[in-house]
Amino acid sequence: MRQRFKAVVSYDGFDYAGWQIQPAERGATIQQTIQDAISAICRQPLSITGSGRTDAQVHAWGQVFHFDVDFSLNAFQWKRAINGHLPKDIHIRSIETVDPHFHARFDAIGKRYEYRIQLGDANVFTRRYAFQSPWALNVQTMREGAAYLIGEHDFSSFCANSRTETPDQVRTITRLELVEDGDQLRLIYEGNGFMRYMVRMLTGTLIEVGRGRLTPQEVQKMLLARDKQICHFNAKPQGLTLVEVYYSSSRGSSQDALAQSCGQDK
Amino acid sequence: MRQRFKAVVSYDGFDYAGWQIQPAERGATIQQTIQDAISAICRQPLSITGSGRTDAQVHAWGQVFHFDVDFSLNAFQWKRAINGHLPKDIHIRSIETVDPHFHARFDAIGKRYEYRIQLGDANVFTRRYAFQSPWALNVQTMREGAAYLIGEHDFSSFCANSRTETPDQVRTITRLELVEDGDQLRLIYEGNGFMRYMVRMLTGTLIEVGRGRLTPQEVQKMLLARDKQICHFNAKPQGLTLVEVYYSSSRGSSQDALAQSCGQDK
Repeated sequence: MRQRFKAVVSYDGFDYAGWQIQPAERGATIQQTIQDAISAICRQPLSITGSGRTDAQVHAWGQVFHFDVDFSLNAFQWKRAINGHLPKDIHIRSIETVDPHFHARFDAIGKRYEYRIQLGDANVFTRRYAFQSPWALNVQTMREGAAYLIGEHDFSSFCANSRTETPDQVRTITRLELVEDGDQLRLIYEGNGFMRYMVRMLTGTLIEVGRGRLTPQEVQKMLLARDKQICHFNAKPQGLTLVEVYYSSSRGSSQDALAQSCGQDK
Repeated sequence: MRQRFKAVVSYDGFDYAGWQIQPAERGATIQQTIQDAISAICRQPLSITGSGRTDAQVHAWGQVFHFDVDFSLNAFQWKRAINGHLPKDIHIRSIETVDPHFHARFDAIGKRYEYRIQLGDANVFTRRYAFQSPWALNVQTMREGAAYLIGEHDFSSFCANSRTETPDQVRTITRLELVEDGDQLRLIYEGNGFMRYMVRMLTGTLIEVGRGRLTPQEVQKMLLARDKQICHFNAKPQGLTLVEVYYSSSRGSSQDALAQSCGQDK
Protein backbone atom coordinates (compact mmCIF):
# COMPACT_ATOMS: atom_id res chain seq x y z
CA MET A 1 0.00 0.00 0.00
CA ARG A 2 1.33 3.40 -0.97
CA GLN A 3 2.15 5.54 2.07
CA ARG A 4 3.37 9.06 2.67
CA PHE A 5 6.25 9.52 5.09
CA LYS A 6 7.41 12.71 6.77
CA ALA A 7 11.10 12.80 7.74
CA VAL A 8 13.14 15.21 9.86
CA VAL A 9 16.75 15.38 8.67
CA SER A 10 19.91 17.03 10.01
CA TYR A 11 22.91 17.78 7.82
CA ASP A 12 26.32 19.37 7.93
CA GLY A 13 25.94 21.31 4.69
CA PHE A 14 29.53 22.60 4.54
CA ASP A 15 30.59 20.22 1.76
CA TYR A 16 27.32 20.37 -0.24
CA ALA A 17 25.97 22.56 -3.02
CA GLY A 18 22.75 23.08 -1.06
CA TRP A 19 19.45 21.21 -0.75
CA GLN A 20 18.05 21.56 -4.26
CA ILE A 21 19.16 19.23 -7.05
CA GLN A 22 21.64 20.98 -9.37
CA PRO A 23 23.62 20.05 -12.46
CA ALA A 24 26.19 17.52 -11.18
CA GLU A 25 29.20 19.74 -11.91
CA ARG A 26 28.12 22.13 -9.14
CA GLY A 27 28.65 19.42 -6.53
CA ALA A 28 26.57 16.99 -4.54
CA THR A 29 23.23 18.16 -3.13
CA ILE A 30 21.42 17.03 0.00
CA GLN A 31 18.20 16.22 -1.88
CA GLN A 32 19.97 14.07 -4.47
CA THR A 33 21.98 12.23 -1.81
CA ILE A 34 18.82 11.36 0.17
CA GLN A 35 16.89 10.38 -2.97
CA ASP A 36 19.72 8.10 -4.02
CA ALA A 37 19.68 6.43 -0.58
CA ILE A 38 15.92 5.82 -0.63
CA SER A 39 15.95 4.73 -4.28
CA ALA A 40 18.73 2.23 -3.53
CA ILE A 41 16.62 0.69 -0.76
CA CYS A 42 13.36 0.30 -2.69
CA ARG A 43 15.09 -0.18 -6.07
CA GLN A 44 12.99 2.37 -7.89
CA PRO A 45 13.62 6.00 -8.74
CA LEU A 46 11.89 8.20 -6.20
CA SER A 47 11.79 11.90 -5.44
CA ILE A 48 11.44 13.71 -2.13
CA THR A 49 9.86 17.12 -1.43
CA GLY A 50 11.57 19.40 1.08
CA SER A 51 10.05 22.22 3.14
CA GLY A 52 12.20 24.58 1.09
CA ARG A 53 15.74 25.01 -0.16
CA THR A 54 18.86 25.67 1.82
CA ASP A 55 21.84 27.33 0.11
CA ALA A 56 25.25 25.80 -0.51
CA GLN A 57 27.13 25.29 2.79
CA VAL A 58 24.02 26.00 4.91
CA HIS A 59 23.22 23.42 7.60
CA ALA A 60 20.04 21.94 9.00
CA TRP A 61 19.12 20.47 12.35
CA GLY A 62 15.47 19.92 11.48
CA GLN A 63 14.83 20.17 7.71
CA VAL A 64 11.61 18.33 6.79
CA PHE A 65 10.74 16.39 3.63
CA HIS A 66 8.06 13.95 2.52
CA PHE A 67 8.04 11.06 0.10
CA ASP A 68 5.55 8.47 -1.14
CA VAL A 69 6.42 4.84 -1.44
CA ASP A 70 4.81 1.42 -1.61
CA PHE A 71 7.38 -0.73 0.14
CA SER A 72 7.10 -2.99 3.17
CA LEU A 73 9.08 -1.05 5.76
CA ASN A 74 7.62 0.71 8.76
CA ALA A 75 8.82 4.15 9.88
CA PHE A 76 11.41 2.75 12.28
CA GLN A 77 12.85 0.45 9.62
CA TRP A 78 12.93 3.31 7.10
CA LYS A 79 14.95 5.45 9.48
CA ARG A 80 17.54 2.71 10.00
CA ALA A 81 17.68 1.76 6.34
CA ILE A 82 18.10 5.32 5.02
CA ASN A 83 20.72 6.25 7.64
CA GLY A 84 22.59 3.08 6.70
CA HIS A 85 22.78 4.35 3.10
CA LEU A 86 23.62 7.99 3.87
CA PRO A 87 27.07 9.53 4.35
CA LYS A 88 27.77 10.58 7.94
CA ASP A 89 27.14 14.27 7.33
CA ILE A 90 23.43 13.64 6.68
CA HIS A 91 21.31 11.94 9.35
CA ILE A 92 17.57 11.24 9.48
CA ARG A 93 16.43 12.14 13.01
CA SER A 94 12.89 10.79 12.72
CA ILE A 95 10.40 9.36 10.26
CA GLU A 96 6.65 8.93 10.64
CA THR A 97 3.75 8.05 8.38
CA VAL A 98 1.46 11.00 7.66
CA ASP A 99 -1.86 11.78 6.03
CA PRO A 100 -1.40 11.46 2.23
CA HIS A 101 -2.40 15.14 1.92
CA PHE A 102 0.44 16.36 4.14
CA HIS A 103 2.87 18.50 2.12
CA ALA A 104 6.31 19.40 3.53
CA ARG A 105 6.39 22.77 1.74
CA PHE A 106 2.79 23.96 1.47
CA ASP A 107 1.82 22.96 5.00
CA ALA A 108 4.79 24.62 6.71
CA ILE A 109 3.48 27.50 8.83
CA GLY A 110 6.83 28.78 10.06
CA LYS A 111 10.55 28.20 10.41
CA ARG A 112 13.32 28.80 12.85
CA TYR A 113 16.83 29.65 11.68
CA GLU A 114 19.96 30.31 13.69
CA TYR A 115 23.00 32.25 12.53
CA ARG A 116 26.20 31.74 14.55
CA ILE A 117 29.03 34.24 14.74
CA GLN A 118 32.37 33.30 16.31
CA LEU A 119 33.86 36.34 18.04
CA GLY A 120 37.51 36.91 18.88
CA ASP A 121 40.25 34.68 17.56
CA ALA A 122 39.41 32.20 14.79
CA ASN A 123 38.34 28.77 16.09
CA VAL A 124 39.22 25.66 14.06
CA PHE A 125 36.36 23.67 15.61
CA THR A 126 33.57 26.10 14.70
CA ARG A 127 34.89 27.25 11.30
CA ARG A 128 32.45 24.96 9.46
CA TYR A 129 29.46 26.05 11.58
CA ALA A 130 29.95 29.71 12.47
CA PHE A 131 31.05 32.88 10.68
CA GLN A 132 34.48 33.76 12.07
CA SER A 133 34.12 37.48 12.62
CA PRO A 134 37.35 39.41 12.20
CA TRP A 135 35.58 42.39 13.79
CA ALA A 136 34.44 43.18 17.30
CA LEU A 137 30.66 43.68 17.26
CA ASN A 138 28.49 46.01 19.31
CA VAL A 139 25.64 43.70 20.31
CA GLN A 140 23.57 46.54 21.77
CA THR A 141 23.30 48.48 18.49
CA MET A 142 22.67 45.21 16.62
CA ARG A 143 19.70 44.57 18.94
CA GLU A 144 18.39 48.08 18.23
CA GLY A 145 18.63 47.43 14.49
CA ALA A 146 17.00 44.01 14.86
CA ALA A 147 14.01 45.52 16.67
CA TYR A 148 12.96 47.31 13.44
CA LEU A 149 12.76 43.99 11.61
CA ILE A 150 10.38 42.18 13.96
CA GLY A 151 6.76 42.07 12.81
CA GLU A 152 5.03 42.04 9.42
CA HIS A 153 7.00 43.88 6.72
CA ASP A 154 7.65 43.91 3.00
CA PHE A 155 11.17 42.45 2.99
CA SER A 156 11.91 43.28 -0.69
CA SER A 157 15.11 45.06 0.35
CA PHE A 158 16.44 41.94 2.03
CA CYS A 159 15.91 39.08 -0.41
CA ALA A 160 17.17 37.84 -3.75
CA ASN A 161 13.74 36.88 -5.12
CA SER A 162 12.58 39.10 -7.98
CA ARG A 163 9.08 40.59 -7.77
CA THR A 164 8.09 38.57 -10.86
CA GLU A 165 9.15 35.37 -9.16
CA THR A 166 7.65 36.23 -5.76
CA PRO A 167 5.02 39.01 -6.13
CA ASP A 168 4.21 39.05 -2.41
CA GLN A 169 7.34 39.81 -0.41
CA VAL A 170 5.54 40.51 2.85
CA ARG A 171 6.65 38.18 5.63
CA THR A 172 6.31 38.19 9.42
CA ILE A 173 9.29 37.80 11.72
CA THR A 174 7.92 36.76 15.10
CA ARG A 175 11.27 36.52 16.89
CA LEU A 176 14.72 37.94 16.21
CA GLU A 177 16.87 37.45 19.26
CA LEU A 178 20.61 37.96 19.75
CA VAL A 179 21.99 35.53 22.32
CA GLU A 180 25.53 35.92 23.66
CA ASP A 181 26.85 32.44 24.31
CA GLY A 182 30.47 32.39 25.50
CA ASP A 183 32.60 33.57 22.57
CA GLN A 184 29.70 33.12 20.13
CA LEU A 185 26.83 35.37 19.17
CA ARG A 186 23.71 33.53 18.00
CA LEU A 187 20.99 35.26 16.00
CA ILE A 188 17.70 33.39 16.28
CA TYR A 189 15.06 34.06 13.64
CA GLU A 190 11.49 32.77 13.71
CA GLY A 191 8.83 33.70 11.22
CA ASN A 192 6.14 32.51 8.85
CA GLY A 193 8.47 32.36 5.88
CA PHE A 194 11.90 33.43 4.69
CA MET A 195 12.79 34.22 1.08
CA ARG A 196 16.04 33.46 -0.70
CA TYR A 197 19.08 34.94 1.13
CA MET A 198 16.72 36.77 3.51
CA VAL A 199 18.26 35.54 6.78
CA ARG A 200 21.78 36.01 5.46
CA MET A 201 21.07 39.54 4.13
CA LEU A 202 19.42 40.58 7.42
CA THR A 203 22.36 39.10 9.34
CA GLY A 204 24.91 40.76 7.06
CA THR A 205 23.16 44.09 7.62
CA LEU A 206 23.11 43.64 11.41
CA ILE A 207 26.83 42.76 11.32
CA GLU A 208 27.43 46.12 9.58
CA VAL A 209 25.53 47.77 12.44
CA GLY A 210 27.65 45.86 14.98
CA ARG A 211 30.81 47.09 13.23
CA GLY A 212 29.55 50.66 13.43
CA ARG A 213 29.28 51.06 9.68
CA LEU A 214 25.48 51.43 9.73
CA THR A 215 23.24 52.94 12.42
CA PRO A 216 20.25 50.99 13.74
CA GLN A 217 18.00 53.62 12.13
CA GLU A 218 19.53 52.92 8.71
CA VAL A 219 18.25 49.34 9.00
CA GLN A 220 14.72 50.74 9.22
CA LYS A 221 15.37 53.06 6.26
CA MET A 222 16.62 50.15 4.20
CA LEU A 223 13.54 48.09 5.12
CA LEU A 224 11.11 50.89 4.22
CA ALA A 225 12.87 51.56 0.90
CA ARG A 226 11.73 48.19 -0.50
CA ASP A 227 14.63 48.51 -2.92
CA LYS A 228 16.37 45.47 -4.43
CA GLN A 229 19.57 47.49 -4.91
CA ILE A 230 19.96 48.68 -1.33
CA CYS A 231 21.44 45.70 0.53
CA HIS A 232 24.90 44.48 -0.42
CA PHE A 233 25.48 42.41 2.68
CA ASN A 234 25.05 38.66 2.51
CA ALA A 235 26.51 36.90 5.56
CA LYS A 236 28.56 33.79 4.80
CA PRO A 237 26.47 30.63 4.40
CA GLN A 238 28.29 28.32 6.85
CA GLY A 239 27.01 30.32 9.85
CA LEU A 240 23.39 29.48 9.01
CA THR A 241 21.34 26.52 10.25
CA LEU A 242 17.69 25.71 9.55
CA VAL A 243 16.75 24.57 13.06
CA GLU A 244 13.08 23.67 12.80
CA VAL A 245 10.09 23.73 10.45
CA TYR A 246 6.70 24.27 12.08
CA TYR A 247 3.44 22.64 10.98
CA SER A 248 -0.03 23.03 12.44
CA SER A 249 -0.58 19.94 14.55
CA SER A 250 -3.59 18.93 12.45
CA ARG A 251 -1.48 18.46 9.30
CA GLY A 252 2.03 17.72 10.47
CA SER A 253 1.14 14.42 12.06
CA SER A 254 -2.06 12.51 12.65
CA GLN A 255 -2.82 10.65 15.85
CA ASP A 256 -2.02 7.40 14.05
CA ALA A 257 1.19 8.80 12.69
CA LEU A 258 2.37 9.86 16.12
CA ALA A 259 1.83 6.33 17.38
CA GLN A 260 4.10 5.09 14.59
CA SER A 261 6.70 7.80 15.07
CA CYS A 262 10.17 6.47 15.69
CA GLY A 263 11.24 8.86 18.39
CA GLN A 264 12.16 12.34 17.23
CA ASP A 265 14.84 13.35 19.69
CA LYS A 266 14.60 16.25 22.08
CA MET B 1 69.60 37.61 15.49
CA ARG B 2 68.52 34.01 15.84
CA GLN B 3 65.54 33.64 18.20
CA ARG B 4 63.53 30.77 19.61
CA PHE B 5 59.74 31.04 19.42
CA LYS B 6 57.15 29.03 21.31
CA ALA B 7 53.77 28.67 19.59
CA VAL B 8 50.41 27.34 20.79
CA VAL B 9 48.43 25.83 17.91
CA SER B 10 44.89 24.50 17.55
CA TYR B 11 43.87 22.12 14.78
CA ASP B 12 40.93 20.14 13.51
CA GLY B 13 42.88 16.93 12.88
CA PHE B 14 40.02 15.03 11.20
CA ASP B 15 41.46 15.36 7.70
CA TYR B 16 45.13 14.88 8.68
CA ALA B 17 47.43 11.89 9.07
CA GLY B 18 48.50 13.16 12.51
CA TRP B 19 51.17 15.55 13.79
CA GLN B 20 54.36 13.73 12.84
CA ILE B 21 55.78 13.97 9.31
CA GLN B 22 55.02 10.79 7.32
CA PRO B 23 55.68 9.56 3.82
CA ALA B 24 53.50 11.79 1.62
CA GLU B 25 51.23 8.95 0.47
CA ARG B 26 49.77 8.63 3.97
CA GLY B 27 48.31 12.11 3.72
CA ALA B 28 49.11 15.60 4.93
CA THR B 29 50.47 16.05 8.44
CA ILE B 30 50.08 18.99 10.81
CA GLN B 31 53.85 19.36 11.35
CA GLN B 32 54.60 19.44 7.62
CA THR B 33 51.81 21.92 6.93
CA ILE B 34 53.09 24.32 9.61
CA GLN B 35 56.73 23.91 8.53
CA ASP B 36 55.74 24.68 4.94
CA ALA B 37 53.94 27.84 6.08
CA ILE B 38 56.92 29.12 8.10
CA SER B 39 59.42 28.12 5.42
CA ALA B 40 57.40 30.00 2.80
CA ILE B 41 57.52 33.15 4.93
CA CYS B 42 61.26 33.15 5.67
CA ARG B 43 62.22 31.46 2.37
CA GLN B 44 64.40 28.83 3.96
CA PRO B 45 63.72 25.25 4.96
CA LEU B 46 62.95 25.10 8.66
CA SER B 47 61.78 22.46 11.09
CA ILE B 48 59.58 22.73 14.16
CA THR B 49 59.60 20.61 17.34
CA GLY B 50 56.28 19.65 18.89
CA SER B 51 55.52 18.70 22.51
CA GLY B 52 54.72 15.23 21.19
CA ARG B 53 52.78 13.48 18.45
CA THR B 54 49.06 13.31 17.97
CA ASP B 55 47.56 10.43 15.96
CA ALA B 56 45.72 10.68 12.66
CA GLN B 57 42.33 12.41 13.12
CA VAL B 58 43.18 13.55 16.66
CA HIS B 59 42.62 17.26 17.40
CA ALA B 60 44.41 19.87 19.43
CA TRP B 61 43.29 23.03 21.17
CA GLY B 62 46.69 23.78 22.68
CA GLN B 63 49.49 21.77 21.06
CA VAL B 64 52.85 23.49 21.59
CA PHE B 65 55.90 23.65 19.33
CA HIS B 66 59.11 25.66 19.11
CA PHE B 67 61.25 26.80 16.22
CA ASP B 68 64.42 28.82 15.72
CA VAL B 69 64.73 31.50 13.12
CA ASP B 70 66.73 34.59 12.27
CA PHE B 71 64.16 36.74 10.53
CA SER B 72 62.91 40.24 11.26
CA LEU B 73 59.39 39.56 12.52
CA ASN B 74 58.21 39.96 16.11
CA ALA B 75 55.91 37.43 17.78
CA PHE B 76 52.73 39.30 16.77
CA GLN B 77 53.84 39.52 13.14
CA TRP B 78 54.77 35.82 13.14
CA LYS B 79 51.31 34.85 14.35
CA ARG B 80 49.62 36.85 11.59
CA ALA B 81 52.01 35.71 8.89
CA ILE B 82 51.81 32.00 9.73
CA ASN B 83 48.02 32.04 10.07
CA GLY B 84 47.85 33.77 6.69
CA HIS B 85 49.73 30.83 5.15
CA LEU B 86 47.86 28.03 6.97
CA PRO B 87 44.65 26.29 5.88
CA LYS B 88 41.63 27.14 8.04
CA ASP B 89 41.74 23.88 10.02
CA ILE B 90 45.06 24.85 11.64
CA HIS B 91 45.31 28.08 13.64
CA ILE B 92 48.17 29.51 15.70
CA ARG B 93 46.61 30.84 18.93
CA SER B 94 49.70 32.54 20.28
CA ILE B 95 53.42 32.98 19.70
CA GLU B 96 56.06 34.33 22.04
CA THR B 97 59.84 34.50 22.12
CA VAL B 98 61.39 32.17 24.70
CA ASP B 99 64.73 31.38 26.25
CA PRO B 100 66.88 29.58 23.61
CA HIS B 101 67.04 26.57 25.96
CA PHE B 102 63.27 26.10 26.09
CA HIS B 103 62.29 22.77 24.51
CA ALA B 104 58.63 22.01 23.63
CA ARG B 105 59.03 18.28 24.30
CA PHE B 106 61.64 17.93 27.03
CA ASP B 107 60.35 20.79 29.15
CA ALA B 108 56.70 19.67 29.13
CA ILE B 109 55.74 18.65 32.67
CA GLY B 110 52.19 17.54 31.93
CA LYS B 111 49.32 17.39 29.48
CA ARG B 112 45.57 17.58 29.45
CA TYR B 113 43.51 15.54 26.99
CA GLU B 114 39.78 15.38 26.53
CA TYR B 115 37.83 12.53 24.93
CA ARG B 116 34.28 13.35 23.83
CA ILE B 117 31.52 10.78 23.44
CA GLN B 118 28.23 11.68 21.75
CA LEU B 119 25.41 9.74 23.39
CA GLY B 120 22.04 8.93 21.87
CA ASP B 121 21.25 9.55 18.21
CA ALA B 122 24.14 10.35 15.86
CA ASN B 123 24.84 14.08 15.51
CA VAL B 124 26.10 15.43 12.18
CA PHE B 125 27.67 18.47 13.85
CA THR B 126 29.84 16.56 16.33
CA ARG B 127 30.76 13.57 14.13
CA ARG B 128 34.22 15.02 13.42
CA TYR B 129 34.90 15.84 17.09
CA ALA B 130 33.21 13.16 19.20
CA PHE B 131 32.87 9.38 19.12
CA GLN B 132 29.25 8.66 18.21
CA SER B 133 28.39 5.93 20.70
CA PRO B 134 25.84 3.44 19.40
CA TRP B 135 25.54 2.16 22.99
CA ALA B 136 24.02 3.56 26.15
CA LEU B 137 26.78 3.91 28.77
CA ASN B 138 26.61 3.48 32.53
CA VAL B 139 28.60 6.50 33.71
CA GLN B 140 28.62 5.34 37.33
CA THR B 141 30.50 2.08 36.60
CA MET B 142 32.83 3.97 34.24
CA ARG B 143 33.70 6.31 37.12
CA GLU B 144 34.42 3.31 39.35
CA GLY B 145 36.74 1.86 36.71
CA ALA B 146 38.43 5.24 36.18
CA ALA B 147 39.21 5.53 39.90
CA TYR B 148 41.65 2.59 39.62
CA LEU B 149 43.65 4.47 36.97
CA ILE B 150 44.32 7.66 38.90
CA GLY B 151 47.78 7.92 40.46
CA GLU B 152 51.21 6.56 39.57
CA HIS B 153 51.07 3.23 37.74
CA ASP B 154 52.94 1.14 35.20
CA PHE B 155 50.60 1.60 32.21
CA SER B 156 52.22 -1.14 30.03
CA SER B 157 48.80 -2.75 29.55
CA PHE B 158 47.38 0.43 28.06
CA CYS B 159 49.91 1.64 25.51
CA ALA B 160 51.34 0.68 22.15
CA ASN B 161 54.97 1.49 23.01
CA SER B 162 57.18 -1.59 23.24
CA ARG B 163 59.37 -1.98 26.32
CA THR B 164 62.48 -1.71 24.13
CA GLU B 165 61.26 1.61 22.78
CA THR B 166 60.06 2.98 26.14
CA PRO B 167 61.67 1.06 29.03
CA ASP B 168 59.92 3.11 31.71
CA GLN B 169 56.16 2.84 31.28
CA VAL B 170 55.31 4.32 34.68
CA ARG B 171 53.19 7.45 34.38
CA THR B 172 51.05 9.48 36.78
CA ILE B 173 47.46 10.37 36.02
CA THR B 174 46.56 13.27 38.31
CA ARG B 175 42.98 13.69 37.07
CA LEU B 176 40.52 11.45 35.25
CA GLU B 177 37.10 12.99 35.41
CA LEU B 178 33.89 12.04 33.58
CA VAL B 179 31.73 15.08 32.93
CA GLU B 180 28.16 14.71 31.67
CA ASP B 181 27.50 17.67 29.40
CA GLY B 182 24.04 17.57 27.78
CA ASP B 183 24.06 14.63 25.36
CA GLN B 184 27.85 14.35 25.55
CA LEU B 185 30.13 12.59 27.98
CA ARG B 186 33.59 14.16 28.31
CA LEU B 187 36.52 12.25 29.78
CA ILE B 188 39.19 14.64 31.05
CA TYR B 189 42.71 13.26 31.54
CA GLU B 190 45.59 15.13 33.16
CA GLY B 191 48.96 13.61 33.89
CA ASN B 192 52.71 13.94 33.63
CA GLY B 193 52.88 12.05 30.34
CA PHE B 194 50.86 9.82 28.05
CA MET B 195 52.31 7.10 25.82
CA ARG B 196 51.15 6.13 22.34
CA TYR B 197 47.42 5.20 22.25
CA MET B 198 47.31 5.42 26.07
CA VAL B 199 44.35 7.81 26.34
CA ARG B 200 42.45 6.00 23.58
CA MET B 201 43.09 2.54 25.11
CA LEU B 202 42.04 3.72 28.57
CA THR B 203 38.93 5.34 27.08
CA GLY B 204 38.12 2.25 25.00
CA THR B 205 38.38 0.13 28.16
CA LEU B 206 36.13 2.49 30.14
CA ILE B 207 33.59 2.40 27.29
CA GLU B 208 33.53 -1.42 27.65
CA VAL B 209 32.80 -0.91 31.34
CA GLY B 210 30.01 1.54 30.49
CA ARG B 211 28.49 -1.03 28.13
CA GLY B 212 28.58 -3.64 30.91
CA ARG B 213 31.07 -5.86 29.10
CA LEU B 214 33.80 -5.34 31.72
CA THR B 215 33.46 -4.74 35.46
CA PRO B 216 35.27 -1.82 37.11
CA GLN B 217 37.43 -4.36 38.96
CA GLU B 218 38.58 -5.88 35.66
CA VAL B 219 40.11 -2.49 34.78
CA GLN B 220 42.30 -2.80 37.86
CA LYS B 221 43.22 -6.40 36.96
CA MET B 222 44.20 -5.30 33.45
CA LEU B 223 46.33 -2.47 34.87
CA LEU B 224 48.14 -4.74 37.33
CA ALA B 225 48.78 -7.40 34.65
CA ARG B 226 51.21 -5.07 32.81
CA ASP B 227 50.52 -7.21 29.76
CA LYS B 228 50.80 -5.83 26.20
CA GLN B 229 48.29 -8.43 24.95
CA ILE B 230 45.49 -7.64 27.39
CA CYS B 231 43.82 -4.51 25.98
CA HIS B 232 42.09 -4.73 22.60
CA PHE B 233 40.12 -1.53 22.97
CA ASN B 234 41.32 1.59 21.21
CA ALA B 235 38.67 4.32 21.13
CA LYS B 236 38.26 6.10 17.78
CA PRO B 237 40.72 8.94 17.23
CA GLN B 238 38.29 11.74 16.30
CA GLY B 239 36.94 11.91 19.87
CA LEU B 240 40.34 12.93 21.24
CA THR B 241 41.71 16.45 21.71
CA LEU B 242 45.04 17.53 23.19
CA VAL B 243 43.76 20.48 25.21
CA GLU B 244 46.85 21.86 26.91
CA VAL B 245 50.55 21.22 27.47
CA TYR B 246 51.94 22.34 30.83
CA TYR B 247 55.41 23.82 31.42
CA SER B 248 56.99 24.98 34.62
CA SER B 249 56.71 28.75 34.55
CA SER B 250 60.49 29.17 34.74
CA ARG B 251 61.00 27.50 31.34
CA GLY B 252 57.79 28.02 29.40
CA SER B 253 58.15 31.76 29.16
CA SER B 254 60.54 34.33 30.52
CA GLN B 255 59.44 37.73 31.81
CA ASP B 256 60.68 39.28 28.57
CA ALA B 257 58.86 36.71 26.52
CA LEU B 258 55.60 37.38 28.33
CA ALA B 259 55.92 41.05 27.52
CA GLN B 260 56.22 40.15 23.84
CA SER B 261 53.44 37.56 23.92
CA CYS B 262 50.74 38.23 21.37
CA GLY B 263 47.75 37.46 23.56
CA GLN B 264 47.06 33.81 24.09
CA ASP B 265 43.30 33.70 24.35
CA LYS B 266 41.33 32.69 27.40
